[in-house]
Amino acid sequence: MSLDLKKYIDIIEDFPKEGISFKDVSPLLLNPKAMKQTIKDMAKIAKKMKPTVIIGPEARGFVFGVPLAYELDVGFVMARKDGKLPNKTISYKYDTEYSTTSINIHENAINENDRVLIVDDLLATGGTLEAIKNLVEKKKAVVVGVITLVELTKVRNEECLKGVQVESLIKYEF
Amino acid sequence: MSLDLKKYIDIIEDFPKEGISFKDVSPLLLNPKAMKQTIKDMAKIAKKMKPTVIIGPEARGFVFGVPLAYELDVGFVMARKDGKLPNKTISYKYDTEYSTTSINIHENAINENDRVLIVDDLLATGGTLEAIKNLVEKKKAVVVGVITLVELTKVRNEECLKGVQVESLIKYEF
Repeated sequence: MSLDLKKYIDIIEDFPKEGISFKDVSPLLLNPKAMKQTIKDMAKIAKKMKPTVIIGPEARGFVFGVPLAYELDVGFVMARKDGKLPNKTISYKYDTEYSTTSINIHENAINENDRVLIVDDLLATGGTLEAIKNLVEKKKAVVVGVITLVELTKVRNEECLKGVQVESLIKYEF
Repeated sequence: MSLDLKKYIDIIEDFPKEGISFKDVSPLLLNPKAMKQTIKDMAKIAKKMKPTVIIGPEARGFVFGVPLAYELDVGFVMARKDGKLPNKTISYKYDTEYSTTSINIHENAINENDRVLIVDDLLATGGTLEAIKNLVEKKKAVVVGVITLVELTKVRNEECLKGVQVESLIKYEF
């Protein structure tokens, strides 16, 4: 029987700052049945995209991207903030609500034949995942899709991830 | 046939600063066979410890701790730096080589009946994992073991993780 995954998401108001209704995946991670269902559901969607590799941003992108890569038998690439990756990187700078930040991957992590699936816990504006898409395209590889556990439908910036198949298991309007 | 996992670790000298010989797990993550063997090998050791839950520190502790929890069908708890966890946390402050830092878990994440396995990519001094052990003991739960992929045998601080079964798949003397 299928679990209602929303029951395993905690909603914390005004975190990390006033006005933000934070969606916390901690209870889902604590429940092996809910976690298993999450990864199996993601895998079902992912298989049709035929990815050769998965990229996830630190740190919660690792939480879902790594077991999904494990389930699909494909490699995983860490997308990280500045100063975390030891080898030669490619970097993409982008604006968040209050600042400018960068996301990086190892230059040798993907090649032009790769079909890249981007995975994260949550899709809000899509700015970080759009930045990763730009890194993938710098390497002349193709983004075959984006999968997240949670999507905040009213926060989405439609300029981000244009033309990409975006799938999420749970949607919130707030 | 068993792979030599050391072949999937990159060694980068003088990262993040001079004199440090950084062990990078990126190539292992990119290779699904090496990653599968890593998690299966960890699972074999972990099963004997009979954990009810796994804790891993951000971010690379998530990379190995989450698929291991998935493989063993137990829950996973994120240990994070300050300001990252939205609910009520317990915190432990500890000294690193150059500064003082804190590690946190959600207060409700474990209870006194839990048998906790701590997982990370790398064991150096053991300071961070000792701090997590202190958090577990604050909750009157027991640490049944520590498993890491890599261990730096000459860097270990023997004051850390005293009396705990510590296992690693790969050892380096430098």
